Amino acid sequence: MKLLKNVRLYTGEEYFERGAVAFDDGGIVYAGAQSALTDGLRADVIDGRGGLCMPPMVNAHTHAAMVLLRGVASDENLNDWLDKVVPIEEMYTPQMIHDGTMLAIAQMIRTGTSAFADMYYHMHSVIDAVLETGIRANITRGSSSREGVDSHVSWFKDHDGAANGNLRVYMGIHAEYTSDEDIVSYAADTAASLGTGIHVHVSESAYEVAGCVERHGCSPVEYFDRLGVFDLPTIAAHCVHLTGSDIALLGSKHVNIAHCPLSNLKLGNGIAPVRDLMGSGAAIAVGTDGASSNNSLDMFRETKAMSLLAKGSLNDPKAMSAEESLRCASLNGYRALGFGNAGLIKAGMDADMIVLDSASFNMFPGVDPAADAVYSATGEDVILNIVNGKVLYAFGEFKTLDIDKVRKEAYATARELGIV
Amino acid sequence: MKLLKNVRLYTGEEYFERGAVAFDDGGIVYAGAQSALTDGLRADVIDGRGGLCMPPMVNAHTHAAMVLLRGVASDENLNDWLDKVVPIEEMYTPQMIHDGTMLAIAQMIRTGTSAFADMYYHMHSVIDAVLETGIRANITRGSSSREGVDSHVSWFKDHDGAANGNLRVYMGIHAEYTSDEDIVSYAADTAASLGTGIHVHVSESAYEVAGCVERHGCSPVEYFDRLGVFDLPTIAAHCVHLTGSDIALLGSKHVNIAHCPLSNLKLGNGIAPVRDLMGSGAAIAVGTDGASSNNSLDMFRETKAMSLLAKGSLNDPKAMSAEESLRCASLNGYRALGFGNAGLIKAGMDADMIVLDSASFNMFPGVDPAADAVYSATGEDVILNIVNGKVLYAFGEFKTLDIDKVRKEAYATARELGIV
Repeated sequence: MKLLKNVRLYTGEEYFERGAVAFDDGGIVYAGAQSALTDGLRADVIDGRGGLCMPPMVNAHTHAAMVLLRGVASDENLNDWLDKVVPIEEMYTPQMIHDGTMLAIAQMIRTGTSAFADMYYHMHSVIDAVLETGIRANITRGSSSREGVDSHVSWFKDHDGAANGNLRVYMGIHAEYTSDEDIVSYAADTAASLGTGIHVHVSESAYEVAGCVERHGCSPVEYFDRLGVFDLPTIAAHCVHLTGSDIALLGSKHVNIAHCPLSNLKLGNGIAPVRDLMGSGAAIAVGTDGASSNNSLDMFRETKAMSLLAKGSLNDPKAMSAEESLRCASLNGYRALGFGNAGLIKAGMDADMIVLDSASFNMFPGVDPAADAVYSATGEDVILNIVNGKVLYAFGEFKTLDIDKVRKEAYATARELGIV
Repeated sequence: MKLLKNVRLYTGEEYFERGAVAFDDGGIVYAGAQSALTDGLRADVIDGRGGLCMPPMVNAHTHAAMVLLRGVASDENLNDWLDKVVPIEEMYTPQMIHDGTMLAIAQMIRTGTSAFADMYYHMHSVIDAVLETGIRANITRGSSSREGVDSHVSWFKDHDGAANGNLRVYMGIHAEYTSDEDIVSYAADTAASLGTGIHVHVSESAYEVAGCVERHGCSPVEYFDRLGVFDLPTIAAHCVHLTGSDIALLGSKHVNIAHCPLSNLKLGNGIAPVRDLMGSGAAIAVGTDGASSNNSLDMFRETKAMSLLAKGSLNDPKAMSAEESLRCASLNGYRALGFGNAGLIKAGMDADMIVLDSASFNMFPGVDPAADAVYSATGEDVILNIVNGKVLYAFGEFKTLDIDKVRKEAYATARELGIV
């Protein structure tokens, strides 16, 4: 048993000025006022140094190994960007994907992320990195062929639920414009027979939507719905360019939207109608997308962007509160990724929590913890990251990875690929 | 003489993979390739540890001491926010303003800002803090009376150009809605007779513009122009709600716009037409506004927001490049604040420069330094901040202030004000 003491505790629902959390890898035993703890508890004590303990961030859509490509073809149009990025990606070996993913995971752990939904390839390399580091992940390949769909079957059977439940395997379809009706139907059927969910890019750009209308006579949302995708647990990434009936449909099917506000701005795609989606019944989770189109993996900055864009685009400072923003970035993310028992710090839930440094400039003077976390902090303010009962990062130290080795190997890979 | 070696150097115009800068408080003597340095140079060497040396950030519009109010009434409408904030501000003593300003300056120095334009009150307290810390500032009081205008005269005569030119004093008018034609004319005439510039809030909200049209039959831009404001060097903060003729007018007068993208989003005011303003001839500088409406003072995050909002709102990833964004945040800011000899790292310019940590996750792998700085880094990646030849921050240490004392005094002030 471990006992985190001396924290300001925001459980996701309640606030305790002086809180404590008792937990092990079986879950949280106690979370609440420190004063109400019984003296008899035998536990290893972790001193939270007066920091703010809160549910961690969940990165609901990324391509982790793309940290290798950070800064490549920034400020380019999508086609020019693809012309530079794709030839590099085609050179990837499984080892390269492993090394890139390890560095991305290190940055995510450092900045308070406990779980990420990954869509890339050489997924065995991603699985290895996830198992080595102790982070949670929902992994998928962005398939565009029957063969790609098939490859999920053995990953699912071998790894879904592995590592004390830290690993989930979803079906992955890259997008409408890189597949066809046969492949999408086959993916949906295969996912249904496995009993898993599906992760897919949906309506990211106006160009994509116009192409889909031309090819199929309907929007990408209608297309995927018609083929049964939204009858499964779905992570629908982006969802920027939507009609009113798209929004109603995503809402009626309670689809999990992986909202990627900064990537959508950076690639010139605009601002997703988040408030309308929430109003219709869809659940908003938050993702950074790959580091090559953001270029950060910091979920704190992403969450601020979501909240402020909602306020700014609706001309309403009350459009999305700090607490609601955190719920999207954490609880909704856990649910979207299939980690239904995490995202709130309360007895019976999995022991996932982070602590922000009370001595950070960003947390001064500390009037409103949720507002400080969303509007002022960055991921660099994180001093503790605990995932499923295990300490992954504490006070400047990585506990499950050798950061010097990780950096060195990732840099060697970037050199080998001719990126630097 | 000091010599900064072992840096990747982005001068604001040119890039040197292995650069060096020789400087003293009289300015930069050499900036360029390290290999081209003559051996005979006698200087104290600063090892830049392979980091990225670039021009610092200039915060072109803030209310520094409002760090004391960070998190107060977040997520409120403007009127409810004012109801909570104004009664606290009315309790301020000069000492409280000093203590709040010191903490804000510390955070700005820490995050790579070398200069800020402040609009607040008890300006003597702000002047003291600026002189103590070695940062640059353009200070002004947001006046709404003739008495407020008059107070600038002695500040200007006593302090403009002080501290090796680090301090500038501009006239300050709070806004159209808190003044009248007589006061604004008087302020413009007084500034002209002193030979200084003017700092003013302009067209921040739709409500403000509608009120001005009702009161004066014209937009705030036309109103201030009619009263002679834009014939002076001007810092026009916000400029969100503009007509086509407002934009043309601001351009023809080459007004310096202090663009505050995150504050404008957070208060529900929308997105300023930055690209149109640039096209018309106005100069875009960048500001955070006060920490109570942002809630950060990190100019790196602000600059990313500017660039990405331009791309996203215009559906064009090429709408604003990383280099252009840095020019706005640095060179344009220096010029707006009246520091015409800083903002580029080249011989003859004032010695202002920062270094970003090459070992930061955000700077990996380092393909495109400007893109890394704008899209990936935060101010926490800054490891050196040098202002006018003086090292203010180096490798975790503040060189001109006692950070523990600054924190303690600011916290005591926040308690005394009943904020925490």
